[in-house]
Amino acid sequence: MEIGIIGLGLIGGSIAQGLKKNHHKVNAYDKDVNSLNYAVDKNIIDKSFLDISEFLKNNKLVYLCLYPHDIINFFKTNIGFIQPGTIFIEVSGIKSSLISKIEEIEMSNIEIIYTHPIAGKESSGVYNSDCSIFNDSNYIIIDYFKNNKENVALVKKLAEEMGFNKISIVSKETHDDLLAYTSHITHLISMALVNSYDEETNVIDFAGDSYKDLTRIAQNNTVLWTDIFLNNSEYILKRLDLFIDELSLLKKEIQNNDFEKLQNLLERSNKLKKKYKKVR
Amino acid sequence: MEIGIIGLGLIGGSIAQGLKKNHHKVNAYDKDVNSLNYAVDKNIIDKSFLDISEFLKNNKLVYLCLYPHDIINFFKTNIGFIQPGTIFIEVSGIKSSLISKIEEIEMSNIEIIYTHPIAGKESSGVYNSDCSIFNDSNYIIIDYFKNNKENVALVKKLAEEMGFNKISIVSKETHDDLLAYTSHITHLISMALVNSYDEETNVIDFAGDSYKDLTRIAQNNTVLWTDIFLNNSEYILKRLDLFIDELSLLKKEIQNNDFEKLQNLLERSNKLKKKYKKVR
Repeated sequence: MEIGIIGLGLIGGSIAQGLKKNHHKVNAYDKDVNSLNYAVDKNIIDKSFLDISEFLKNNKLVYLCLYPHDIINFFKTNIGFIQPGTIFIEVSGIKSSLISKIEEIEMSNIEIIYTHPIAGKESSGVYNSDCSIFNDSNYIIIDYFKNNKENVALVKKLAEEMGFNKISIVSKETHDDLLAYTSHITHLISMALVNSYDEETNVIDFAGDSYKDLTRIAQNNTVLWTDIFLNNSEYILKRLDLFIDELSLLKKEIQNNDFEKLQNLLERSNKLKKKYKKVR
Repeated sequence: MEIGIIGLGLIGGSIAQGLKKNHHKVNAYDKDVNSLNYAVDKNIIDKSFLDISEFLKNNKLVYLCLYPHDIINFFKTNIGFIQPGTIFIEVSGIKSSLISKIEEIEMSNIEIIYTHPIAGKESSGVYNSDCSIFNDSNYIIIDYFKNNKENVALVKKLAEEMGFNKISIVSKETHDDLLAYTSHITHLISMALVNSYDEETNVIDFAGDSYKDLTRIAQNNTVLWTDIFLNNSEYILKRLDLFIDELSLLKKEIQNNDFEKLQNLLERSNKLKKKYKKVR
């Protein structure tokens, strides 16, 4: 198949690689000519477009790999250039607020399938793209009443080709709630942990693997993550409060010096970790 | 050299392996005969002792690999069997409260060097021991007025032989404060994150690497960690409050929907991550 990509960053580039590995022809549009030239040179894409109207004339199945706020701008600006029947596969990390904003724009004869490849890296840009980040990863497709079943099946097939392991179809609310927990508050926690130490001693000399693990994702793309945090604030604040409640329980038993109650809370962690262990 | 180990668990077993790799003769005492037999079978140690008085008669340089509360009991119970001039190298994760409790016990003619190999695993027991966990890890030796310089130099040399990268000598207060931050509250955070989700949906299908990283250490040895949390509570509560303050700042800007201020907090994480990057 011939497949287009709008936004050739880390995820766009990795999707391009995953598609080409499966013998699809890949065209890409980006506003940054250096990213496009690099991707053609490295055989990450087949053809580059710097003109969005030209790109949209030639592509009817398109992965839309933009930041959430850029997606809205993209449709507002380019609606006139989009061919009837074009299918967009959207891949950002938030859904409810995005979908409601897009529904306000009048667009007919095009289909948007909202998905989330749960994969990434601390680094960004097409220069760091790598389709192996999809191996054994999770992929979410939003259950959306406007979508055509055959098109959803195609998106699922492409995800399988790219190496995703578990593909789930859920409501936008379930996605945003669970991602607030597994991804958004984990990033906030990691950032808060790093922000709480600004002293002379090099903390790395006193750190083990646990600190390295918990602070890896504190290094981040600040525009992308600020955007995500503000666009999923309702679920994030809910999940953050649940986390703070549990942390306060642990803190209370430490203050009370209560060995038994504190140990019970630690045993609960072990039990829950086992409950959710990957069974596949 | 001939070196003894008391407590043949994950750390004791890993130290034994590290010492034998460097051609030292290793003797071990443990109350669990199965651990001892396994270690002799697998050539992790040279000789096993089930009788502590017999062990102490034959060993004058001893790694003491017990839980903090067991260390106190060990000295109270066995002080009569210890030969004058014996050197103990203690390896637990807390120092101030341990040292003050040990100073209450009257012991002369023996030396205790307090150290902390910052390495571990989620699993426990000699069966999981593996001296490669020390490679490129940090080792802390407590700067203690009662210690003999030559003996501290020997402990440092043995740590280098075992593969530790950075070896720091600091006060017990600095150790406990920094470890409260890098290790103790990171474990509490990981446990609280896991404890805040107990629902039907298998969360693992919605998780990426960030969730896996942040919850790895939630699976834990509950006796060891309860002991650590209660014996370093002062620094842990201080560091936990600093963390919660930073998390509250992030939460506030999300509630205020303030893109610029939120992004500034994220940029602070990036800046601090760079500041403390390993420069060696």
